[in-house]
Amino acid sequence: MKASLHHPLQAADVIQWDHHCDVAVVGFGAAGACAALEAARAGASVTLFEMAGGSGGASALSGGEIYIGGGSDAQTAAGFSDSAEALETYLQMAGGPDADADKCALYARNSLDHYQWLKDQGVPYKGTYVPGKVIEPTTDDTLIWSGSELAWPFREQAAPAPRGHVIQHEGWGGGRKLVDILEARTVEAGVDVQCNARVTALIMDGRAVAGLVVRQDGQERCIRATRGVILCTGGFCMNEDMLRRYAPHAAKLNDPIGVNDNGSGIEMGMAAGGDAIHLDEFFSTCPWIMPDSLAQGVFVNVAGNRFIGEDAYHGRVSRTMLDQPGGHVYLLVDNATFAQPLDIARIEIAAVGESWEEVEAELGMEPETLSATMRVYNRNAAQGRDPLFHRGPEFMTPLVEAPFAALKLDFSTSYFSFFTLGGLNTAPTGEVLDRGGIPVPGLYAAGRASCGLPRWGHGYSSGMSLADCTFFGRQAGLSAARNEPADAVSNRSIDVVSAE
Amino acid sequence: MKASLHHPLQAADVIQWDHHCDVAVVGFGAAGACAALEAARAGASVTLFEMAGGSGGASALSGGEIYIGGGSDAQTAAGFSDSAEALETYLQMAGGPDADADKCALYARNSLDHYQWLKDQGVPYKGTYVPGKVIEPTTDDTLIWSGSELAWPFREQAAPAPRGHVIQHEGWGGGRKLVDILEARTVEAGVDVQCNARVTALIMDGRAVAGLVVRQDGQERCIRATRGVILCTGGFCMNEDMLRRYAPHAAKLNDPIGVNDNGSGIEMGMAAGGDAIHLDEFFSTCPWIMPDSLAQGVFVNVAGNRFIGEDAYHGRVSRTMLDQPGGHVYLLVDNATFAQPLDIARIEIAAVGESWEEVEAELGMEPETLSATMRVYNRNAAQGRDPLFHRGPEFMTPLVEAPFAALKLDFSTSYFSFFTLGGLNTAPTGEVLDRGGIPVPGLYAAGRASCGLPRWGHGYSSGMSLADCTFFGRQAGLSAARNEPADAVSNRSIDVVSAE
Repeated sequence: MKASLHHPLQAADVIQWDHHCDVAVVGFGAAGACAALEAARAGASVTLFEMAGGSGGASALSGGEIYIGGGSDAQTAAGFSDSAEALETYLQMAGGPDADADKCALYARNSLDHYQWLKDQGVPYKGTYVPGKVIEPTTDDTLIWSGSELAWPFREQAAPAPRGHVIQHEGWGGGRKLVDILEARTVEAGVDVQCNARVTALIMDGRAVAGLVVRQDGQERCIRATRGVILCTGGFCMNEDMLRRYAPHAAKLNDPIGVNDNGSGIEMGMAAGGDAIHLDEFFSTCPWIMPDSLAQGVFVNVAGNRFIGEDAYHGRVSRTMLDQPGGHVYLLVDNATFAQPLDIARIEIAAVGESWEEVEAELGMEPETLSATMRVYNRNAAQGRDPLFHRGPEFMTPLVEAPFAALKLDFSTSYFSFFTLGGLNTAPTGEVLDRGGIPVPGLYAAGRASCGLPRWGHGYSSGMSLADCTFFGRQAGLSAARNEPADAVSNRSIDVVSAE
Repeated sequence: MKASLHHPLQAADVIQWDHHCDVAVVGFGAAGACAALEAARAGASVTLFEMAGGSGGASALSGGEIYIGGGSDAQTAAGFSDSAEALETYLQMAGGPDADADKCALYARNSLDHYQWLKDQGVPYKGTYVPGKVIEPTTDDTLIWSGSELAWPFREQAAPAPRGHVIQHEGWGGGRKLVDILEARTVEAGVDVQCNARVTALIMDGRAVAGLVVRQDGQERCIRATRGVILCTGGFCMNEDMLRRYAPHAAKLNDPIGVNDNGSGIEMGMAAGGDAIHLDEFFSTCPWIMPDSLAQGVFVNVAGNRFIGEDAYHGRVSRTMLDQPGGHVYLLVDNATFAQPLDIARIEIAAVGESWEEVEAELGMEPETLSATMRVYNRNAAQGRDPLFHRGPEFMTPLVEAPFAALKLDFSTSYFSFFTLGGLNTAPTGEVLDRGGIPVPGLYAAGRASCGLPRWGHGYSSGMSLADCTFFGRQAGLSAARNEPADAVSNRSIDVVSAE
């Protein structure tokens, strides 16, 4: 059997090492760039392999938002106080039922230093705040609310502050600029960047990762990485087979956010003995809060019932939508809050009426379902309270101005973008852990190839993945650079079990 | 590093083989018994290792119900017609978004032959039918409705028939008797049964499984299994660490159904290169339909909304409960339907009132939430229809006789039993597949160590796991017995990748 993503090559079977380096990094998104940069600065010779023709990955498709807190210049200038404790609590809550307490604590204590580090690399931050519910700023402002900080139950346990620190950039898509800056620093630091280089297998020396096989110019080359291999290959939102086996509820969505997010690093890491956890988890969102007056709407499922405080982060609301039965949900708005949804969202107007009873009837719903929901909602909204789902008072607008409309968000036809959150289990150092919790020698991972700070679709907040990519990418680079080099292709080190 | 569940021993490192057999089976529940039996009858020398002092596993804790259809004697005698096609469709629907079409088809075509095989082993079936909604018969009758066949949406696509074929047995717990019978046949067939034998690692010869390490009498012994190892070790409902990493939503439940269901086979299979899929899925249930008048009740969540047709299989209803926010749900009943819940279920009466409005108020719920739900429900129930959740007409009893009560099912304190449904990905032959879909030579799995027919908590039906254990256990046994023996500890067979 040929070596592959699923079957590492044994070092003893390598006829010739075609290239030597201390640290090999796979993938040139934000995680890979940060890992390579720190490894090189720590004195390691670093080779970075990227499958595509250049840097980017899913990071370059993002808004370039990084989740940072604890009292940054921008937070202070905008009049917000924040603390490392509040940030840590928020990260813990957002991490869901198996949040990684160590990573949350480490990141929370160091996010301001990390922010400074990003500035030191040349990432520009204007330090100005945009209020309101925005997905990313289209101006060059750089601080926004990017999660569920103000929403229940988060606001009750973690003192809220805006923490989405966005690269200074006009318009959408600051992620490309962020990666460009990190790429420039990476090259300056002497990292040997090799693009159009597809890594096809790891090379193992007993339990340890010794290098990798890469396909370049039609040839397979064996690369010896003395101190370690760092997998920064992204998630698996573009691998239909993996989605089916591990995250079938994401498989029905139509817009994977990725470039080459084929799960190759997760597969290679598992084949090397690494544990992959929470593979069923995914982030998803539908851009229903643009135009922003729609953010005052009320969501109901096909039974006419609300299911969440609609003021939570759009990803949390969208992920909860997907839990609802019937394949679609409705966003209810009145004349005052109605706006034509973005074309791209493919949200259609399903019913219009002079009363909620008429909308209910036009949707073919039972009398006293949707209309009863809206009667309760409007009664409470008039008092600025939501005893059912704890929506914040500023979003409790009574929907009482005719005509009324129901917009339909269909899970299979509306625009639901998504990416996966499960991946290789790593220590805060970036070391890949095996199923017994022991590091696989010589193997590191960061970004969405790993299971990091974001690991629960219902808790995701914008900037959390890039925070994880950049910060824990750096840790992985440092750890690999400091790793004691393994003896050149030593013998297997597993104990002999004898009978007797 | 010592060999362990997470790190196979290499055959080259075995100093002495302490025992030789053609086929080694690990675990002596129903799956292991059937695997061993078929392997032995096919001419293989079989050794079966069981960690406990005797046979049983989770199978012996069950009701001994097996999901069989297509027109059995019992179905026909009770006046039901059924077909292999209807059975296959039902299994497909019950398997959820990644149902295994090949296994569903193979089982549906062969379930009557399998039923005959079970009878041939001496499993008694009286062939008599018990109507109604029962968890298992307490009489010695042997056919019941054991799933969601009559419930929406199943009834619309798969012609309903009762398919729970239960071993003839007075009282609860026929599973113990089923395993005893299979054990007797296993011993008669010449299987070498070794109890108090804990398998601690697999032994690999390159990519192939060559044997296993077992701890017996304080010693570790190396067992050579020439034709294969069959993992029948059950799921991981009793391994808190695995639950946290792979199925954190099950980790909060308090009653794992298992004996030694510690996931050891899944871990060893993964360490040998096997793929494990749908590890997040689990069956769960709370015994709320005993006494059976409670089955006429209505479930609402903390927002006062219904969330499922309550006539679905109790496991499907219970699993959907756990998706609801707030940590508990309420079962609403009136004077006519009220009965004291089973003590064991730890379901408490949370509110009583002369009207649904009073119950609503006593629960501290918003006016017009629960009471509006019940107004709609009672109006529709009077007409025998449920346009919202499609509950069958025979379960649409208006709840109109005061006093009214809300029973509270708390997810953390009520009795929620559960077991895991994810496991090693296997072919219908029982071969364990690697992440590329290629069999791991010499490795087989069956029962809840594998991901079989049941793989979606919301679709589980009673008898589906034992059907899978027994039928696919047999396939695994046959496959292993027919496997070409590997050359005694051959060299690794992986291709050498050379660079030019």
